[in-house]
Amino acid sequence: FSVAAVSGGADSLALLYFLRESGTSLLVAHFNHQLRPDSGADEAFVRQTAAALSLPFVRDSADVAAFAAQNQLSLEEAARQLRYRFLFRAARQAGAAAIVTGHTADDQAETVLMHFLRGAGLPGLKGMTARTLLPAFDPEIPLLRPLLGWTRAQTENFCHARGLNYRIDSSNRDTAYLRNRLRHQLLPLLAEYNPQIRQTLAKTAALLQEEEELLREMEDSAWQRVAARAENGYAQFDREQLSALAPALRRRLLRRAALRLRPALRDVDFEALQRAANLQPVEVAGGLKIFVEADTLYLAESESLLPLNSPQLNASLPLTVGQACELGRGWVLTATELAPAALNLPLADNFSAALDADRTGNRFRLRAARRGERFEPLGLPGKTVKLSDFFINLKIPQRLRAGWPLLCAGDEIAWVVGLRPAEKFRVTEKTRRVIGLSLKKV
Amino acid sequence: FSVAAVSGGADSLALLYFLRESGTSLLVAHFNHQLRPDSGADEAFVRQTAAALSLPFVRDSADVAAFAAQNQLSLEEAARQLRYRFLFRAARQAGAAAIVTGHTADDQAETVLMHFLRGAGLPGLKGMTARTLLPAFDPEIPLLRPLLGWTRAQTENFCHARGLNYRIDSSNRDTAYLRNRLRHQLLPLLAEYNPQIRQTLAKTAALLQEEEELLREMEDSAWQRVAARAENGYAQFDREQLSALAPALRRRLLRRAALRLRPALRDVDFEALQRAANLQPVEVAGGLKIFVEADTLYLAESESLLPLNSPQLNASLPLTVGQACELGRGWVLTATELAPAALNLPLADNFSAALDADRTGNRFRLRAARRGERFEPLGLPGKTVKLSDFFINLKIPQRLRAGWPLLCAGDEIAWVVGLRPAEKFRVTEKTRRVIGLSLKKV
Repeated sequence: FSVAAVSGGADSLALLYFLRESGTSLLVAHFNHQLRPDSGADEAFVRQTAAALSLPFVRDSADVAAFAAQNQLSLEEAARQLRYRFLFRAARQAGAAAIVTGHTADDQAETVLMHFLRGAGLPGLKGMTARTLLPAFDPEIPLLRPLLGWTRAQTENFCHARGLNYRIDSSNRDTAYLRNRLRHQLLPLLAEYNPQIRQTLAKTAALLQEEEELLREMEDSAWQRVAARAENGYAQFDREQLSALAPALRRRLLRRAALRLRPALRDVDFEALQRAANLQPVEVAGGLKIFVEADTLYLAESESLLPLNSPQLNASLPLTVGQACELGRGWVLTATELAPAALNLPLADNFSAALDADRTGNRFRLRAARRGERFEPLGLPGKTVKLSDFFINLKIPQRLRAGWPLLCAGDEIAWVVGLRPAEKFRVTEKTRRVIGLSLKKV
Repeated sequence: FSVAAVSGGADSLALLYFLRESGTSLLVAHFNHQLRPDSGADEAFVRQTAAALSLPFVRDSADVAAFAAQNQLSLEEAARQLRYRFLFRAARQAGAAAIVTGHTADDQAETVLMHFLRGAGLPGLKGMTARTLLPAFDPEIPLLRPLLGWTRAQTENFCHARGLNYRIDSSNRDTAYLRNRLRHQLLPLLAEYNPQIRQTLAKTAALLQEEEELLREMEDSAWQRVAARAENGYAQFDREQLSALAPALRRRLLRRAALRLRPALRDVDFEALQRAANLQPVEVAGGLKIFVEADTLYLAESESLLPLNSPQLNASLPLTVGQACELGRGWVLTATELAPAALNLPLADNFSAALDADRTGNRFRLRAARRGERFEPLGLPGKTVKLSDFFINLKIPQRLRAGWPLLCAGDEIAWVVGLRPAEKFRVTEKTRRVIGLSLKKV
């Protein structure tokens, strides 16, 4: 069964009777916005209607004006949020499968016009859909709008034909509300250009919804390919693959990530999305920013939320050949003496290194870098570089540099772990004993 | 080099100087619409400007009002068609690579608004693109709009900064033209709802163009999969695959086919497209209708344009075992006596049949069906069916039935070619000699 949102007006009354006549089980829900003197009478009317139909009834009310002021929202937006909170709460409590509202083709035309004026792009221009999830209110219960194909006049005729009285919302004429200005002032003007403007806009919405459906398919498959996830406060993309996508698709993925991380966001500003899609480090929405690290692009509120993708040292640690050392977060470093045959083996990756044991000795210490510290990288004999420059060249993110583990022989850096051994300790033709170092995440 | 369309107004003058300053070679083209008393002065001004810049100049004029009346077009549409005909003709004659126009972001906003009011869907709402092909005028030379990012005020400032005079089109204030009403009446009203309405609409266009780009990619790949071709007066789709596509994609493919068959169409009506996408046999646009035949959906003006996809007989033809018979359009029917070993071979497809030679004899005749003729299909012993019902059951299109070849032994139907042998002549356990029949398209 469904929760029917009933204000008492012609639309919601038609919804109620129409669904009841088509055999849908209903719970009648009324939210009293307390914004008009006759709101109490509206509530009483809906309660009586439900009782006359022997349908269960729930209601709630709130101080919309106070909530609006508190949260710096327009009165309309505050009313919307409180009303939906109530409806979804009622649906959850009653175990309802869905919420149904009486939005009509006229509401649709107004919605499309509103989005057109503010420049919302396809996600806005497509208007209201017959079935929507509003993750800000509930991740699973859908909102259904079975009357989107009806005009407002049709709902009134439906009521008249059944001799149903309905309430007339006195605030519908209040042009302080944008929607009412659109309805009573702008749409009649547009009708001078197209007498069928309402039908045209409702049709535009239906049309764009199907186009949006197609784009959504592309978005879904691109998301699978390019975005690893959006959870734990950050979303993560393969930077190269993201860059290779068409701009519109790039924006869509970023928008989806932002909406996943911030379900309460109603929409994401296009301009910010556009800059973000160009991989500029900007705030996208809801405090979410772009961070680029090597091959990965993150969307997160702060760098501190990003996953650590390298070992990080909190303290100095000893390591003896033949032993293993845990660096935290699952990273393990082992030092073993290698068989002479292994000498010529190419090292498979940065996670391994080979050093000359006669130069390093058998005891190492792992520690973090000191301020201004330098080392002599393998391949640059006689030349030392600042560790900080070295990290920058390798695109190691700032936040990972301070805790980056250095394997030291005595006090000298022998291996910047996972990155580069020092020239001085390298394996040469004269090397008699090799120490193999291996970093693994377990 | 490019053909620059120059009216003499600020937009096209800025275009001319801007392109010239950026080193583009230009041919200045002016179309005199002869709709205003000062149109001669405009033409003289553009001619002098070109001369002062030492640029080649071409011009033409036409009786726009007469052309509009003749072709039942609005004055605007008639002017547009004549102007573009002239520009593309000039480009072809001069061997130009492109045509450039001075459309600005303001024009874009007006275009988007116009399409919004008439309900054009994404292809209209996306506005003018920086590069467009107009197959109605030329299949290859593109129309470029380098100033779409400029506002009209910016073109005026550009001219002022260079001390350039420009012509002011007195008809710009004439509210008989829809575009002027939008510019001078409706847009100022919309600015009360969004002071940045022009920028917003231009932004919307840019946004939707990128979305459209994505959809175009999907459309391209679906076209490759589902549509065999659109040429020789008809387009052809795999019916099952077309039905399986999302409605928006189905509409796009039909629209593309219609525009390929009728390059002069400016757009295809959505409602008709929608009905056609639901595979209803309706007129889509430009006299094009939907025809469904078996597994194929055609878009064509008349059935007579559809490809013949079966052999068709014009006259009665003899066929003797051991010979081949040409049925026209590349279809060849051969009759051979089969080796006894072939008796148990399953027949691979409808294009082959095996008959009992002792019953048929060695001489056949191919002829078309007679009015009301019946035959006894293999598998229905003792039961005859009307050939017309048989064709209907097998979904053979009406237009192919009259000429469908029947292989007759004596005067009796032995094989409805490519469809079904007759029960009477079938191969049984007692058959001693088999005649193999094979239809091929070579």
